[in-house]
Amino acid sequence: MATVTPWEVKGNIDYDKLIQEFGVSKIDERVLKRIEKHTGELHPFLKRKIFFAHRDINFILDEYEKGNKFYLYTGRAPSGKVHIGHMVPWMFTKWLQDKFDVELYFQFPDEEKYLFKKDLSWEDSQAYLQDNMLDVIAMGFDPKKTKFLIDTRDAGLMYKEGVKVAKHITFSTAKAAFGFKDEQNLGAIFYTAMQAVPAFLPSVMKNKKIPCLIPHAIDQDPHFRVTRDVLPKLGHYKPASIQCRFLPGLAGMTTDGKMSSSAEHTAIYTTDDPKTVKNKVNKYAFSGGQATIEEHRKKGGNPDVDVAYQWLMFFEEDDERLKQIYQDYKSGKMLSGEIKAILIEKINKLLAEHQKRREKAKSQIDKFLL
Amino acid sequence: MATVTPWEVKGNIDYDKLIQEFGVSKIDERVLKRIEKHTGELHPFLKRKIFFAHRDINFILDEYEKGNKFYLYTGRAPSGKVHIGHMVPWMFTKWLQDKFDVELYFQFPDEEKYLFKKDLSWEDSQAYLQDNMLDVIAMGFDPKKTKFLIDTRDAGLMYKEGVKVAKHITFSTAKAAFGFKDEQNLGAIFYTAMQAVPAFLPSVMKNKKIPCLIPHAIDQDPHFRVTRDVLPKLGHYKPASIQCRFLPGLAGMTTDGKMSSSAEHTAIYTTDDPKTVKNKVNKYAFSGGQATIEEHRKKGGNPDVDVAYQWLMFFEEDDERLKQIYQDYKSGKMLSGEIKAILIEKINKLLAEHQKRREKAKSQIDKFLL
Repeated sequence: MATVTPWEVKGNIDYDKLIQEFGVSKIDERVLKRIEKHTGELHPFLKRKIFFAHRDINFILDEYEKGNKFYLYTGRAPSGKVHIGHMVPWMFTKWLQDKFDVELYFQFPDEEKYLFKKDLSWEDSQAYLQDNMLDVIAMGFDPKKTKFLIDTRDAGLMYKEGVKVAKHITFSTAKAAFGFKDEQNLGAIFYTAMQAVPAFLPSVMKNKKIPCLIPHAIDQDPHFRVTRDVLPKLGHYKPASIQCRFLPGLAGMTTDGKMSSSAEHTAIYTTDDPKTVKNKVNKYAFSGGQATIEEHRKKGGNPDVDVAYQWLMFFEEDDERLKQIYQDYKSGKMLSGEIKAILIEKINKLLAEHQKRREKAKSQIDKFLL
Repeated sequence: MATVTPWEVKGNIDYDKLIQEFGVSKIDERVLKRIEKHTGELHPFLKRKIFFAHRDINFILDEYEKGNKFYLYTGRAPSGKVHIGHMVPWMFTKWLQDKFDVELYFQFPDEEKYLFKKDLSWEDSQAYLQDNMLDVIAMGFDPKKTKFLIDTRDAGLMYKEGVKVAKHITFSTAKAAFGFKDEQNLGAIFYTAMQAVPAFLPSVMKNKKIPCLIPHAIDQDPHFRVTRDVLPKLGHYKPASIQCRFLPGLAGMTTDGKMSSSAEHTAIYTTDDPKTVKNKVNKYAFSGGQATIEEHRKKGGNPDVDVAYQWLMFFEEDDERLKQIYQDYKSGKMLSGEIKAILIEKINKLLAEHQKRREKAKSQIDKFLL
């Protein structure tokens, strides 16, 4: 049994079942074609069904085709270091920003994890906020078209709008959507209203209705389901969304449904150095290979459970090369150590670039603040 | 049966019973003497037990005597026009500010009534905020020592602190304190955390622990009971409070436990003209007099239920004159029309001054904003 809520993801996730349970739509060929018409090409995350579901993407494209541009909204709740799993939706968000030339509102709900994690102090949550902003800037978002919304810092704008949302959500609804008990604290109960705000705040600020598209990992869907019910009551569009599956943790998909920041050994952090990456992958990445080289050469590996291969599906952009790796690994031509070496090189290259931009980001935060 | 909650006050209130139920302390002679030592005299509201209860006033005076000044915190949730009942705690707050020479933080929780009243629109609640600020300024608070805290406007400062409070209050606790059901909306559930903020915000802003004294009508006590439980967990003092009973509505104490803004015929608004005041008092003020003049001369009136007399207890500052009115009315020497005429003159004089200052207040709002 897998669990997928905004606060907990565990187990072996059946994404087809999630589509049914959550009531989202599968991204089909027709949708892919419509996107490609505007972008000229498809991001590997779309081709490989890493972004696999959506709500109302056709509305977004209808409006776009009429000349009514959407904006993007995504976010990060600071509670630990950023790992490469977090980068997945942000990489795709950057691609959307570049291809459609649209604005991005990036929310940092700096109260969320403080409210939901008993032992997270206010000071630590604020330190993670500062740290996490560097990673987001390092993704390369256009500073002229990207604004950070920091819940407590920007509450002068946001709380008022959160209150309007909150008036339309009962505790009964929140219980059903998030599984709250009476022991939940009042801030955590209110929080979903704050997560709804960036889905319409730009429309309030610019005094016109602007469509909103939210790229996000599927676990956040319960928030936006509630948001979509409420926003029309306030005269706003329902936000559309496009949803990805999780990068599995190093221990593999059956145990680590989602990479976790708090589990050192299952995550690669954006600040890990090449040696650390090498050690973690070699030591902890669940292998689909056979017990001995001889057996592996004979039976071949299983890329469908091999973490190195699964990760390459996220980070190896070259379709041909990925296909080759799949065949070679499955046939037994490529050994576990070899596929891991490919992954290590790939990640270290990605992180070397990221870390360079992350260093520069330290002087750029102001450009992104409201 | 009387009901006294922050959102509903009705019936004939037994204040002695409330003291027991709420767990507040009666203001006794010893407390009065301690206050008088510093103020030189006692406000009529203290002598007449209109301010009748407190929490931790001795702590406030202990600190004051050690040279550690307190600040005052009170407020007004905009949801309608201000009536003379609202002025009662504010008159006393001004007296405290003048006598102790202390700062006042005046909260306008402009989201509260919007969240608790289904039919109150955001626009109306904001219009009432603008209107109600004029009445508060007209009370004559020292602009150099008085700051308005407007929840949604000042959320940049307040929401962050509200979140810290909210982490320590469960829905179970809120249910017990306020009688919430699962149908309550998320904003209303969170709200008590925002009402807690002015009880320590000045300490945060000035980075030192400053005692807080809250003059307020007794119905708000459940909020501050919860606040007092939480604040020490955040390293703050528990706020002290001093609590008044309600000015009854025109229909009398048995039906109108508290004057209501939304019941036109039971309230005198601060903007009522002299003729309106005269008509309302003559037409609607519950009389303790007898059915005929003859009978009244013989049996006398009952000042204990007579609204005109009850109101004079609030607004006639001269003890000797009040005593004379009591005797004359009780003996039958003074008729109902006569005691009402005295009240009408008193209120009209009070309102004439108030309305003059209220007019001037229109250009002074900025002085009070943070």
